[in-house]
Amino acid sequence: MIIVMKDDATQEQISKVEERLIDLGFKTHPITGDVKTVIGAIGDKRLLKTHGISLMPGVEDMIPIMKPYKLAGKELQKTPSVINIGNITIGGDEIIVMAGPCAIESEKQYLETAFIVKEAGAKILRGGAFKPRSSPYAFQGLEEDGLKIMYEARQATGLPIVTEVVDTRDVDLVASYTDIIQIGARNMQNFKLLTECGATKKPILLKRGLCATIEEWLMAAEYIMAEGNKDIILCERGIRTYETATRNTLDISAVAVSKELTHLPVIIDPSHSGGSWKYVSSLSKAGIAAGADGLIIEVHTDPTNAMCDGPQSLTPSDFRRLMNELVRVSEAVDRKLPL
Amino acid sequence: MIIVMKDDATQEQISKVEERLIDLGFKTHPITGDVKTVIGAIGDKRLLKTHGISLMPGVEDMIPIMKPYKLAGKELQKTPSVINIGNITIGGDEIIVMAGPCAIESEKQYLETAFIVKEAGAKILRGGAFKPRSSPYAFQGLEEDGLKIMYEARQATGLPIVTEVVDTRDVDLVASYTDIIQIGARNMQNFKLLTECGATKKPILLKRGLCATIEEWLMAAEYIMAEGNKDIILCERGIRTYETATRNTLDISAVAVSKELTHLPVIIDPSHSGGSWKYVSSLSKAGIAAGADGLIIEVHTDPTNAMCDGPQSLTPSDFRRLMNELVRVSEAVDRKLPL
Amino acid sequence: MIIVMKDDATQEQISKVEERLIDLGFKTHPITGDVKTVIGAIGDKRLLKTHGISLMPGVEDMIPIMKPYKLAGKELQKTPSVINIGNITIGGDEIIVMAGPCAIESEKQYLETAFIVKEAGAKILRGGAFKPRSSPYAFQGLEEDGLKIMYEARQATGLPIVTEVVDTRDVDLVASYTDIIQIGARNMQNFKLLTECGATKKPILLKRGLCATIEEWLMAAEYIMAEGNKDIILCERGIRTYETATRNTLDISAVAVSKELTHLPVIIDPSHSGGSWKYVSSLSKAGIAAGADGLIIEVHTDPTNAMCDGPQSLTPSDFRRLMNELVRVSEAVDRKLPL
Amino acid sequence: MIIVMKDDATQEQISKVEERLIDLGFKTHPITGDVKTVIGAIGDKRLLKTHGISLMPGVEDMIPIMKPYKLAGKELQKTPSVINIGNITIGGDEIIVMAGPCAIESEKQYLETAFIVKEAGAKILRGGAFKPRSSPYAFQGLEEDGLKIMYEARQATGLPIVTEVVDTRDVDLVASYTDIIQIGARNMQNFKLLTECGATKKPILLKRGLCATIEEWLMAAEYIMAEGNKDIILCERGIRTYETATRNTLDISAVAVSKELTHLPVIIDPSHSGGSWKYVSSLSKAGIAAGADGLIIEVHTDPTNAMCDGPQSLTPSDFRRLMNELVRVSEAVDRKLPL
Repeated sequence: MIIVMKDDATQEQISKVEERLIDLGFKTHPITGDVKTVIGAIGDKRLLKTHGISLMPGVEDMIPIMKPYKLAGKELQKTPSVINIGNITIGGDEIIVMAGPCAIESEKQYLETAFIVKEAGAKILRGGAFKPRSSPYAFQGLEEDGLKIMYEARQATGLPIVTEVVDTRDVDLVASYTDIIQIGARNMQNFKLLTECGATKKPILLKRGLCATIEEWLMAAEYIMAEGNKDIILCERGIRTYETATRNTLDISAVAVSKELTHLPVIIDPSHSGGSWKYVSSLSKAGIAAGADGLIIEVHTDPTNAMCDGPQSLTPSDFRRLMNELVRVSEAVDRKLPL
Repeated sequence: MIIVMKDDATQEQISKVEERLIDLGFKTHPITGDVKTVIGAIGDKRLLKTHGISLMPGVEDMIPIMKPYKLAGKELQKTPSVINIGNITIGGDEIIVMAGPCAIESEKQYLETAFIVKEAGAKILRGGAFKPRSSPYAFQGLEEDGLKIMYEARQATGLPIVTEVVDTRDVDLVASYTDIIQIGARNMQNFKLLTECGATKKPILLKRGLCATIEEWLMAAEYIMAEGNKDIILCERGIRTYETATRNTLDISAVAVSKELTHLPVIIDPSHSGGSWKYVSSLSKAGIAAGADGLIIEVHTDPTNAMCDGPQSLTPSDFRRLMNELVRVSEAVDRKLPL
Repeated sequence: MIIVMKDDATQEQISKVEERLIDLGFKTHPITGDVKTVIGAIGDKRLLKTHGISLMPGVEDMIPIMKPYKLAGKELQKTPSVINIGNITIGGDEIIVMAGPCAIESEKQYLETAFIVKEAGAKILRGGAFKPRSSPYAFQGLEEDGLKIMYEARQATGLPIVTEVVDTRDVDLVASYTDIIQIGARNMQNFKLLTECGATKKPILLKRGLCATIEEWLMAAEYIMAEGNKDIILCERGIRTYETATRNTLDISAVAVSKELTHLPVIIDPSHSGGSWKYVSSLSKAGIAAGADGLIIEVHTDPTNAMCDGPQSLTPSDFRRLMNELVRVSEAVDRKLPL
Repeated sequence: MIIVMKDDATQEQISKVEERLIDLGFKTHPITGDVKTVIGAIGDKRLLKTHGISLMPGVEDMIPIMKPYKLAGKELQKTPSVINIGNITIGGDEIIVMAGPCAIESEKQYLETAFIVKEAGAKILRGGAFKPRSSPYAFQGLEEDGLKIMYEARQATGLPIVTEVVDTRDVDLVASYTDIIQIGARNMQNFKLLTECGATKKPILLKRGLCATIEEWLMAAEYIMAEGNKDIILCERGIRTYETATRNTLDISAVAVSKELTHLPVIIDPSHSGGSWKYVSSLSKAGIAAGADGLIIEVHTDPTNAMCDGPQSLTPSDFRRLMNELVRVSEAVDRKLPL
């Protein structure tokens, strides 16, 4: 940590800051320049209450040097994490595509879609049983009935499933049905939910919050990991910006940045970020080319009549065509996408 | 609702869209221009699944005309809501200041602060027992012990209290101690928590999410109101923008906009938005001058040693000085702030 | 255009709005619903001063239906524009890579780099002679001497050149040396500069402003096209968001959106958007996979000693490696990138 | 400046960075911690090309300590600047209101408005002769004819005038008519225009760019000051955020932040930021209460027929009412606003 003193800080003020740092367990190294003094403080700020130092007389600024996350970063683990789900691995050579409808609407709809996406090459089934909707008057999901339908599709297709949990009270219930627990963008800083999911042994799909920095996203992962659950798949799903032409702005740079900062695998959600089926193909290819480990794509057999997010859902035929195109892009960046 | 057809939409496509709208219960009014056709559709989109129409062949865009919220808006209630908490009212002539430390740290600290802010003119005590922290290694609050201390301060000072709930499982517990339940910015779209709080009879302080639009904020209020709880106090606490000179950007326009769109009272949080005690005075005065109904301000007897948010806390003497200044600003905009 | 009347608008107010619209040359179609009336107005809002209508008594909102750009959109031209520069085409099958240093520093530096990027497969040379720098104390470019060096490199390599103009007074000078005139992000709404560039016959590389919407970007193109110059290459170079891990946030969705809205070719600038050489490879591949028609990449023979933007420049060897990788990604999306 | 080395940086890498810093004229102070080494470098980074250091092997990050602006900051001048325009001062005790229509439309319109705003208490006349418009088909201003009309109003009313320049070629022309030259938001980083205005002796009204940080805004001021012109009035006019309920988001915190970082006066533009006459009153009061030195407000005698920005213009009667209200708010914060 670096403490920057004001230009007119007195020697006494500087000494008091040093004393305080020493009290907190830091070793201090003052550097005196022509205009100002800075104090280097060595120690682990993660364990100490240091914010108050910025309020001491003569202090201009406090600059952290160490990353605030430990388990999610590369300090302790330099090699990429590979997450195992059944006989599938995420974060290895293979590009994993998760697909399915936004919401579970009925047994018939879900099973039909499940077989379609499986045949097209998806390796994991997605679907929402608990839906966080911005309007209280919108369809909120089939809840446990939806989980049961997903489980049935899991048994019928042999594919693992991923579904969202939105309430701490439902974590055990959801975990009892699903292979991967999804934490949605709106809950990325629902810290109690993170902690609760960290206590399960299920892999977690952690979506980035709509206005979360990459650092905050990794801190959310740190919450889960601090509970002992290391199996986290990051999912970039678009951030909120001033641009209204798309639902959100896919932060494609987040793929390269997260590969640099963390050992965790990262996938892309081209459906929610763009908000339109028209952009899914372009964003999916971009995601794989950028280095993502997978995709999560919304597919609906009848988007016009979907109960949720129809406009961003691919039809089965568009999904099949896309999967074939993705095989080629995957190979162009030395990854595999076996259909 | 207005359906905009593409320039090259065929008559058959237009007819199919009309048929579909009629099936959904709308009355349709097509308008044919030189370049394109638009279809006016009369009916309440809040009750119908209409998203799919945007996917019908020939459709370019779908534009909603009605506001998506009903209870929070002025359609059903045109006069401002006034919320009663004990013998205090929020949304009336009087400016209400809520004050106290970010977190409850100890009985001694909290009671001392409670009496200080009461004497300075605060009408409601704030304090955090459950703290949503971005790091799992940071102080997370005293939980129920903190609630007990707050309750003790409530009895000792006679002032009502406001504190945050972060987990659906704790709503009843928090409601049993507090006069006002706070829903924090990070939980503004934690819909289960909104619903749970809507089921209590306690007034709700609803902070705006860090990247929530004003419309989404009102939809969050709608969630609570749809459960039967009409006592909602909106709180603007800064939104996330590209500017890093302040912790967040106080959206001062939100005061005037929310006064136009809703009957609910709105207050300002100058502490979290600016992120520094240095800006609290300027932002507080701006908030009242803009028309806000109150403020929620962090005060700490020893900010340098605070366990949470010290840098943005006022000292008791700064708070006293500010309150005296606020009296004058309040009067300048025809409001009262009796100390 | 749709005029939305307030719920409590009187019949007289509605009639006055209709009269006004008719005066302005519109045909009107009122639609009366249970709650409110909307008026469809047919005519071209681009030619009329219509803003004032939103101020008429009883009017709640005014919603444009037609796109504000005409020449840049697909209304008049549905097929993609292909821009010819010498024997190169942009917007056709081939992916065009423009490369070179951020700034022209010396004849030796520039010619050496020019031959390196040519050999690696770049088809156009980039370089800055007039540099817009956020600090007045930073290197501002060699100005005309820089243009002369670029021209020399053009003659020596046979490759066309692209360079930025930042002042209306320099447009003719720059146009006399360069094959493509670049309008930088900070000048995207310098309308006089757009108009001046529109009066030349040189193709224009139009970078998107740091906080420009895609619509505003196309309106900037419209400014140029309205002067008779149709040869515009759009360049997405990252937008400003709250995320600080990268210099800007590359809006990869802008590729698909601009392909939908306009016939103009679009390229990606992975250097300025990410702000670090570490992210250039990932973003370049993403750009091509997303459907961009080309890239503009900063290459420096000695980034550590570059006078400008060294941290985001590729070394020659990294650039060569990247070009080989881009060949494969291009082919995977049915494009060609001949080295 | 602080150079942060990577955790695994070798001693040789650390030594090379030190050598390089010493070559560039810095004194170095390495600090070795348990996990990593940081190097304190004393010297003035404003004069040196130091970016390249971040590319040296073993370097993780480079953190500047000194502010990048010198003349605009408080390092050399700690007392507030007071700008004199005729017998008016900006930055002193008095709140200065600038008012007038968005665009000069005719002699009659402008003179009428000029007398109205003067009588209501405005001390400076605003008006646009050169209008930067997002559409090439919109009214672009009367240009020199407009300047002549403004000058006539100046002579008739005795009030100084402020008007915008948008082209380096027009700076001398505009300076020959106006008392204050306005640099608009879209040109805040048109560095040639800044430099050209810096060469005049006229005070400059420098609007903040739509997505400019406060630091970039002060660097724009630095460009002007580096040319010898110290008379700069900062103007906060709203920044671009994701919120669409207002045209832009007034960053009210910028008042307090700029008061802390610079000695220059700062005013608020409530018209462009909110984008609606409905919000002008609330934002104006907030601006003064926050500590701004003045306001610039759009007033039109017939907003419904205005050629530009009618929806955000106040009518004469609304302006008069507002001025009376502002007197009270000014006094409440110990400022004067004599009508």
